[in-house]
Amino acid sequence: MRLNDTTDVALRVMIYAASANGRRFTIDQIVGAYGLPRSTVMKVVNALTQGRFLTAQRGRAGGLDLSRAAGENSVGAIVRHMETDFGLVECMRSGDGCAITRCCRLISPLVEARGAFLAVLDKYSVADIALAPADFGLSVS
Amino acid sequence: MRLNDTTDVALRVMIYAASANGRRFTIDQIVGAYGLPRSTVMKVVNALTQGRFLTAQRGRAGGLDLSRAAGENSVGAIVRHMETDFGLVECMRSGDGCAITRCCRLISPLVEARGAFLAVLDKYSVADIALAPADFGLSVS
Repeated sequence: MRLNDTTDVALRVMIYAASANGRRFTIDQIVGAYGLPRSTVMKVVNALTQGRFLTAQRGRAGGLDLSRAAGENSVGAIVRHMETDFGLVECMRSGDGCAITRCCRLISPLVEARGAFLAVLDKYSVADIALAPADFGLSVS
Repeated sequence: MRLNDTTDVALRVMIYAASANGRRFTIDQIVGAYGLPRSTVMKVVNALTQGRFLTAQRGRAGGLDLSRAAGENSVGAIVRHMETDFGLVECMRSGDGCAITRCCRLISPLVEARGAFLAVLDKYSVADIALAPADFGLSVS
């Protein structure tokens, strides 16, 4: 049971964003902080701006900001936005061919377990998982 | 977020086993019931016998039995046994290269969420997800 790699990177980007202490930051700074491929970070930042977790400002003083205060971004909301496939088993996905789906009694416990997983992540905000700016070599303004 | 395909199949095998109503059953019957590849079912049954969820009896009257009463096999135990990788994100797996693992505050919420997921599945036994024998074309003895 894994989260998608893009969800993993999105959580790292949001940790960076919350740790920037209100300063605007760039994709290159995230790439530098984590040593991740630029194309991966760009794709994830794009998804996070589309989901209104980040706001991109254009121009010379441009860069990325948190769209809301870090305390208003739940980890669960980020995971729900990024994780496109929550179909734990075949019958929870499209193209299901399982012979017992019509009468199966396992689907309900699996849905309940998935809900419990997300409910825990909903309790935590990005502020809860922010690091000290110095952990990324960021100076405190 | 998905479970492995082998975990999915293992749960179906255990549903079949619990639905056999105490009758010994064979790999070929499981293959026939679900239309799954024989090699997949053999691999999964082997893992379930190694985990002492199923017992294989050899000989002319041989076949497979539940090792314990269906009510004593939790869904969570089956998932824990079959799902070899519970590393939701990179830092929860070997070969971790994330730059912030040493100070990351996200690991604890993820471990808590994974625990909540499994705790739900621990509440349900294979008896809870058994079907009527007729759902598999099995006669009631």
